[in-house]
Amino acid sequence: KETNQDSPLYMSTPLLDPQDPMESVPLSVGDPMVCILGSGDFSRSLSSRLRCCGCRVVVGSRDPQRLPPGLFPEGVELKTQRGALEGSLVFLALYPEHYPSLLTLRPLLSGRILVDVSNASSLKQEGLSNAQRLAQMFPCSSVVKGFNGLSAWTLLTGAYDHSRQVLVCGDCPSSKLSVLALAQRLGFGAVDVGGLSASRALEEAPLLLFPSWRGPLLTTMLLFSFFYLYIALKNVLMPFLDRAENNLHHLPLITVNQALPAVALVMLSLVYMPGLLASVLQLYRGTKYKRFPDWLDQWMCARKQLGLLSFLCAALHAVYSVCLSIRRASGYMILNAAYQQVLDSWVETQVWRSDLYLSSGILGLGVLCVLALTSLPSVGQALNWREFTFVQSGLGYTSLVLSVAHVLFFGWDFAFLPRAYQYYLPPVFLLSLVLPCCVLIGRFLLLLPCCSVPLNRIRRGWESKQNKPERERQENGAVFGDV
Amino acid sequence: KETNQDSPLYMSTPLLDPQDPMESVPLSVGDPMVCILGSGDFSRSLSSRLRCCGCRVVVGSRDPQRLPPGLFPEGVELKTQRGALEGSLVFLALYPEHYPSLLTLRPLLSGRILVDVSNASSLKQEGLSNAQRLAQMFPCSSVVKGFNGLSAWTLLTGAYDHSRQVLVCGDCPSSKLSVLALAQRLGFGAVDVGGLSASRALEEAPLLLFPSWRGPLLTTMLLFSFFYLYIALKNVLMPFLDRAENNLHHLPLITVNQALPAVALVMLSLVYMPGLLASVLQLYRGTKYKRFPDWLDQWMCARKQLGLLSFLCAALHAVYSVCLSIRRASGYMILNAAYQQVLDSWVETQVWRSDLYLSSGILGLGVLCVLALTSLPSVGQALNWREFTFVQSGLGYTSLVLSVAHVLFFGWDFAFLPRAYQYYLPPVFLLSLVLPCCVLIGRFLLLLPCCSVPLNRIRRGWESKQNKPERERQENGAVFGDV
Amino acid sequence: KETNQDSPLYMSTPLLDPQDPMESVPLSVGDPMVCILGSGDFSRSLSSRLRCCGCRVVVGSRDPQRLPPGLFPEGVELKTQRGALEGSLVFLALYPEHYPSLLTLRPLLSGRILVDVSNASSLKQEGLSNAQRLAQMFPCSSVVKGFNGLSAWTLLTGAYDHSRQVLVCGDCPSSKLSVLALAQRLGFGAVDVGGLSASRALEEAPLLLFPSWRGPLLTTMLLFSFFYLYIALKNVLMPFLDRAENNLHHLPLITVNQALPAVALVMLSLVYMPGLLASVLQLYRGTKYKRFPDWLDQWMCARKQLGLLSFLCAALHAVYSVCLSIRRASGYMILNAAYQQVLDSWVETQVWRSDLYLSSGILGLGVLCVLALTSLPSVGQALNWREFTFVQSGLGYTSLVLSVAHVLFFGWDFAFLPRAYQYYLPPVFLLSLVLPCCVLIGRFLLLLPCCSVPLNRIRRGWESKQNKPERERQENGAVFGDV
Repeated sequence: KETNQDSPLYMSTPLLDPQDPMESVPLSVGDPMVCILGSGDFSRSLSSRLRCCGCRVVVGSRDPQRLPPGLFPEGVELKTQRGALEGSLVFLALYPEHYPSLLTLRPLLSGRILVDVSNASSLKQEGLSNAQRLAQMFPCSSVVKGFNGLSAWTLLTGAYDHSRQVLVCGDCPSSKLSVLALAQRLGFGAVDVGGLSASRALEEAPLLLFPSWRGPLLTTMLLFSFFYLYIALKNVLMPFLDRAENNLHHLPLITVNQALPAVALVMLSLVYMPGLLASVLQLYRGTKYKRFPDWLDQWMCARKQLGLLSFLCAALHAVYSVCLSIRRASGYMILNAAYQQVLDSWVETQVWRSDLYLSSGILGLGVLCVLALTSLPSVGQALNWREFTFVQSGLGYTSLVLSVAHVLFFGWDFAFLPRAYQYYLPPVFLLSLVLPCCVLIGRFLLLLPCCSVPLNRIRRGWESKQNKPERERQENGAVFGDV
Repeated sequence: KETNQDSPLYMSTPLLDPQDPMESVPLSVGDPMVCILGSGDFSRSLSSRLRCCGCRVVVGSRDPQRLPPGLFPEGVELKTQRGALEGSLVFLALYPEHYPSLLTLRPLLSGRILVDVSNASSLKQEGLSNAQRLAQMFPCSSVVKGFNGLSAWTLLTGAYDHSRQVLVCGDCPSSKLSVLALAQRLGFGAVDVGGLSASRALEEAPLLLFPSWRGPLLTTMLLFSFFYLYIALKNVLMPFLDRAENNLHHLPLITVNQALPAVALVMLSLVYMPGLLASVLQLYRGTKYKRFPDWLDQWMCARKQLGLLSFLCAALHAVYSVCLSIRRASGYMILNAAYQQVLDSWVETQVWRSDLYLSSGILGLGVLCVLALTSLPSVGQALNWREFTFVQSGLGYTSLVLSVAHVLFFGWDFAFLPRAYQYYLPPVFLLSLVLPCCVLIGRFLLLLPCCSVPLNRIRRGWESKQNKPERERQENGAVFGDV
Repeated sequence: KETNQDSPLYMSTPLLDPQDPMESVPLSVGDPMVCILGSGDFSRSLSSRLRCCGCRVVVGSRDPQRLPPGLFPEGVELKTQRGALEGSLVFLALYPEHYPSLLTLRPLLSGRILVDVSNASSLKQEGLSNAQRLAQMFPCSSVVKGFNGLSAWTLLTGAYDHSRQVLVCGDCPSSKLSVLALAQRLGFGAVDVGGLSASRALEEAPLLLFPSWRGPLLTTMLLFSFFYLYIALKNVLMPFLDRAENNLHHLPLITVNQALPAVALVMLSLVYMPGLLASVLQLYRGTKYKRFPDWLDQWMCARKQLGLLSFLCAALHAVYSVCLSIRRASGYMILNAAYQQVLDSWVETQVWRSDLYLSSGILGLGVLCVLALTSLPSVGQALNWREFTFVQSGLGYTSLVLSVAHVLFFGWDFAFLPRAYQYYLPPVFLLSLVLPCCVLIGRFLLLLPCCSVPLNRIRRGWESKQNKPERERQENGAVFGDV
């Protein structure tokens, strides 16, 4: 009986024993009892959140007198650790290194649910997780890991929003359920992530720093430094060595603005390359049931980040280009051109060229911008699968084509001048076009019926002969039908 | 005994073994058993998600041997379809055209919950939905529709986020509840959307492609092409016919940039027109209890999309205008002007004009930007009703006023020159002002007490005499009080 | 028994009478019965939402005949108020001023759950809240406050999204639970916020208009008007009085664009100042267990808004600066400069200066933009604590440094010219640098080991001697270990 009374899940029961509902209601249903050991920030925030949601809270501190009054919200009972141990749910708001200090309470804690809210002190630790060590210390209590992701701040001010989740794991299902129910009651999305063996992952999660962004960021930096150095070499260093021409002042703005678009374009093509490779692999293997090599899997998972970084570079490029006209230098050029009485005769094609590469650039960036928007969690979730594919692949390729057009229009008139290749270094925009063009061509080839037809068959579960055991071929596509 | 009874997750268990719950707790409560028929992608992703959340999973494949090892996550039992049929929940991860192949299992499936996760193969199909046909085939099992919106991808990598929902429908409430509970356990927001008759809608949902955007997009395109052609006719074609003046190079950039603001402005006024019409209609009818005509309802629902598209056009217009100064052509003009020694004498009013229309434009766009932000799901949900109205209607009209001011400042000096009307075609900005001005005037009139007072009465539930049966008039506003 | 059967919480019932689960299921579990008194918009929307989620709905109107057919969705029973009173849940969809009209139904209502969905008519009312008055009128029914935040619109079209919450409060826990369960069933996030005393807050919530933005907005406006007037005085008024120079046309654009960056910079420093003050205070007090003064707490809570407004100003500044080159005036200057045959001799340092302050500005804004993005609810929630700190504090200071650099580069050449100080007024950019520099220096000092080491100790719970009672010093940091 113990368990139920305090288990938040008990809430529903009084309705169920019709003899005296009104009596047992207020206590058991409305106000499940929660005990928190420790009086730190987390303890404070958790207790006030619990109070808000109408739970009874008892905080156990080593010496309650020592705590300044008003530290805890109203209605929270402050007791000694011994005195606090009522109810089945006990939160341990201590640093794990202090768990041993609780061994004296072992008999009192036995039979209760100990919620371990601790985080790992560092990544890749050896041995057991905090929760597992706790479980060893208190074999007679059932340990549940959870609530550790939440900062004191979130607990206090966080919206009662189910999209803020509490991941919970533990070996005793019923204890887990009490904790899950409590988490839900506090307005969090509560998720059971399995046995206590999962606790290590939960404990380390808060220490991770954008793991999924590391690779893409590195790629961007490498690409950028390559292009930057290449341009610096070609437009700044060589001219200086060659004819002592001082272009140093190109470095902060102009060179950056030549490298950025190249990076953006290559990154964008990197977003769509893994998809192509995957399709080719499936075609070649004649089945979709073989796993992809890991590097490809990882690449696939990094596409979103690659795309966003490509968008970032493109946006920066746009801003830089616009700012070029504000530069002091541009003022000089015009004025001096004017001073030298240059008559810059109107070249129709030049006007067309600049207008075309400007508009293709703007539109390309615009489309990319829509893509970036849909990668916002709340927007992406509002899309169904077909819409998502349409945006990601349809619009994505559109922006790739527009960007390539942008570069081609930009480069058309000096792509074929020998002076564009001085020092035997091809212009940057040519280099940046290689990968995108490969992707576009590859994509085009895959659209040809000779490829697309078998590919679709494979994607629906069909398998080429060498992948099927003999007798399968009689049955008409047994496994074929699986979603 | 108690414990299980109260746990919501227990819903699924009674079907398992009613005799001794206490025993089956760890199993039934903690690890509900789920069976999946079919070994495709969906089956794989679903099974690994189930494992993550600590469920027991048995996958039934036609011949388990055939499946390459490591295809399914650890802990998933691979059996024959017959052998797999344990537990009450059975997911059918097959294409609907293969359901008949299960008829042999009918006796085994009877009494179990069949979850149909299939999507419609095409929109607007005749006859029964997949789920309904399934229910016909297996009258002794209870069919529940659900989980079909989710892609294999979402199941695998999707955050355990309740804002990602699983819509469920079915005719047997208790079965539905088991599926709902499972969905919640997997960390999705689970919603009951009624009987199996709703399954058609669920099955077609994933096939829809931005249904709510079709109308607004069409409007934008029509408006754009109208304005574009009008400007092309006036500034490119006529001058050419008239005095062989070649303005072809206006088409890619300048003409677009003249059409965009017109479109943006008209769209913005279209956002606020239906609200006005609705008020007028209510005033005229003297009640709010009559339904609006459908076209008005639909227009009302399209306001958000109209607004976002208007913002898009406005933003593009801003970018284009800024880019105009980068254009090759603008370089020519300045230089040649300089070459011809033009002394462009300073006209104070001109400076004021340009500064004023620039700032009103920038501010208008800024306000529109805030509006667009609040239409992001996650932002909009954080607003209460009053804040939402303030932003949508208050800020909305502000931006409309600012945009109109922008256009007026822009046009003030050549609105009244005869040459602005050459070929008897009024300038575009005048055309684009018509609708917005109507809206602003209409809005202003509705603010006058003579309209606003009765309107508020009506909105609070008051009804004019002709809408009320005779005797009502004695009672003092009986229904008046309804929220 | 009746009552429970219809309460949505009863879903768990089949477990409760094991004799014949299949029987009692359909009614009790699937279709809880809900009664709505009142036939207004809210009633209509609520009833259709309830129908969608498979609940039985009875609407009680004063005279059902009077209501136009088709006003309510199919399946909703329209009855007289008396006739409608079945089931345990009764929604009152009336304006609170009409509650007394229900007194006649008191006997019928007794024992039922009355859900009060009303909002406060105005902020800061005296006396009891609507819900409390209702509870007084109907002592034998249990009143639950809830669903009031939701607009009819949200009820109708709102996604079944748990991030849209229903806050519920009431004195009878079991009734509250039924309402919470119903809210969840309708696909809302349901949160218990305590006893009926909390109803005042719930009723007033929908009337609040961006309470958290008021302070920061005021600050921005004050700062802006100060800088604007200062600049107007220095660059427009004084020159006019002094040498009758007419710079009036500066006011709309140039002056604004000089004030904006100053405001942005000061605001940004205001974001990081409270954090510094808090650290200093903790160092000085030698403990983290003393509460901060209220003004500091409030300041801390306003940081997000301050940051966003600073970003807004910075963005506007960027747009303005770019637009300056489109201005009519800039055209004049160039042309006339050209006309007067000015030879603007190339000054290398000038080019460097302009390029450097442009790039530092762009990058600073870019970083700030990332910061602004993470303050979107859906994005922020996807970050763990370490990532959030990294972005907010790490990137935040980066952008502060970049912005300061931007200003320094901008001002370097005329910071030391006497004419920059004419009329004894220092240039604006100097004024705007004061606060940011203080923040940066303070931050730097806190990073020195002499400060950072004790600070970290304090943050881990350590307390200086004067804060600890005598004997504590023997025990090795008893409370030290609390999270």
